[in-house]
Amino acid sequence: MVRTDVAELLERSGAGDRRALARLLTVVEDGDDASRRALLALLPRGPVRTVGMTGAPGVGKSTLTAALVGALRAQGRRVAVLAVDPSSPLTGGALLGDRIRMQGHHADEGVYVRSMASRGQLGGLSAAVPLAVLVLGASGFDDVLVETVGVGQSEVDVAALADVTVLVLAPGLGDGVQAAKAGVLEVADVLVVNRADRSGVEALEAELAGMLELGRLTGAVDGDVPVLRTVAVNGEGVPALAAAIETSMAARRGSSEAGEGSGSRVHQRARRLVLALVEGEVRRLLSAPDAPGAQLLARAVADVAEGELDAVHAAQAVVLGLADLVRNSVPSD
Amino acid sequence: MVRTDVAELLERSGAGDRRALARLLTVVEDGDDASRRALLALLPRGPVRTVGMTGAPGVGKSTLTAALVGALRAQGRRVAVLAVDPSSPLTGGALLGDRIRMQGHHADEGVYVRSMASRGQLGGLSAAVPLAVLVLGASGFDDVLVETVGVGQSEVDVAALADVTVLVLAPGLGDGVQAAKAGVLEVADVLVVNRADRSGVEALEAELAGMLELGRLTGAVDGDVPVLRTVAVNGEGVPALAAAIETSMAARRGSSEAGEGSGSRVHQRARRLVLALVEGEVRRLLSAPDAPGAQLLARAVADVAEGELDAVHAAQAVVLGLADLVRNSVPSD
Repeated sequence: MVRTDVAELLERSGAGDRRALARLLTVVEDGDDASRRALLALLPRGPVRTVGMTGAPGVGKSTLTAALVGALRAQGRRVAVLAVDPSSPLTGGALLGDRIRMQGHHADEGVYVRSMASRGQLGGLSAAVPLAVLVLGASGFDDVLVETVGVGQSEVDVAALADVTVLVLAPGLGDGVQAAKAGVLEVADVLVVNRADRSGVEALEAELAGMLELGRLTGAVDGDVPVLRTVAVNGEGVPALAAAIETSMAARRGSSEAGEGSGSRVHQRARRLVLALVEGEVRRLLSAPDAPGAQLLARAVADVAEGELDAVHAAQAVVLGLADLVRNSVPSD
Repeated sequence: MVRTDVAELLERSGAGDRRALARLLTVVEDGDDASRRALLALLPRGPVRTVGMTGAPGVGKSTLTAALVGALRAQGRRVAVLAVDPSSPLTGGALLGDRIRMQGHHADEGVYVRSMASRGQLGGLSAAVPLAVLVLGASGFDDVLVETVGVGQSEVDVAALADVTVLVLAPGLGDGVQAAKAGVLEVADVLVVNRADRSGVEALEAELAGMLELGRLTGAVDGDVPVLRTVAVNGEGVPALAAAIETSMAARRGSSEAGEGSGSRVHQRARRLVLALVEGEVRRLLSAPDAPGAQLLARAVADVAEGELDAVHAAQAVVLGLADLVRNSVPSD
């Protein structure tokens, strides 16, 4: 795909053409190096409001995401949902799509849902996700909700990407302890106890309060982390969740503008994300099927395998060669 | 440390000066970027014979390593041992040093022992280890034994570095199953049942035979993997181990010279090692305390944290800036 094609798709997508958007997201996931590079050069440089929705399977996360879409639409905002599924490239998004259709968003031009596999792993999160968020922002969406399945590395990674991360829990699943163990509690900005009409809500809230208190003592948790109740299936508590996300988003902006130091949580997240993206890009430049550095790597590997060169000098040669490739591929405009 | 200093240290170390060698290995572990780069430029480009010694704690691995040093010395070979300890930078090497002293190698100019922490993680293996191996080779050692503690990622990584990997087990510890689970069995070229004078040897051998058979069926294990018995404390079976290592080393050379394709085990190992070293180098260039790219990364992170730039474009800027840094730091000679 040549550069003009990507430019045309981006223009059509910005004007509301959903087929053009879908094709752009396919370029993001599977496109060749030149198309990806062209796309990156054309995309506006700037953050897109991103909310991470995380939580263990079975807590009603997809239903809550669909309800949150409704609350944001009621405010006139255009909302895109990226469902990142580490196991299946289809199921998560398909289920979520069903939920959203059930809630009556299916004919709504202001809502877009897409599932992405988390192949091309960047820790637990596909390197394509941050780029997809930019494409959605350039296509007129005000908010992007990134939903991940499971509790673990992908949750910690999505928190580095998102402005605000919502951790969804439910009574009686023991997922609070699981989340704390996986380090997800530490990266959550808002905690939600969904299915709050069931028994065990108070016990879960008490457990969460204890874990947050401990986290504050050890410095793992900082700032106010609100704990909200929702019943996603009937929409209870969802407007309050939307408000809490907005408050957390504003607090984040405030701490950025106050120029909080490099030790701040926002800085740590940004550092983690940028480093991961740099490493993901280096790996892609060397390892993707059509990677510009594939030959470079193959030659170095052959030299090492055949005993002609040690791996340290071979790696050095790859780093130097890659630097040349990167410099020579910079467009002149 | 300026370049001439590194050159002088390397010359002295090559002439047998052990203090110069120790200082070079400190440059490898903790040196500034310029010294490391100077060292890399001066080191001969070519592989050094490397044997990985892996196995769970308690199998008698250090004693066996010391005994193997004796067997190699008896052949007139000069032998260095790198003890890589993921937990403590001192204990492993200190213990091993004791063992080797006990075996009478302490006054032997042909033996050198050094412990290295596995900080600056490259998977489980410090990125400094492959560079240290080159320094030892340039200092006149014929063989470098790299001993790792524990069963897991560091074992799989050391196998990518080593020409031949020896997995040491002992009866009655259940470590065969552990090794198989961790994927270590698949990367071992030689299996050793140490403490073969104890009960349970036949059971362990039968278990290993079954696992190897299964591994061959699934394609995870290829080629002949000999299973040897040793009693390290009295040296039983150690000459046979040295011979098996030599046979495996020759087979490896044979398969390299036969030009076996990119799917071969040797190629896979080389690819894994080179990619890991490239990624480790990129991380070091950005993250080490005196890293040349530290400012570049800090600026990008600040832009993202302050909401001025999205992370994808920030990472792209880091990749471009790093390419410039790498190109500009290439010495003209």
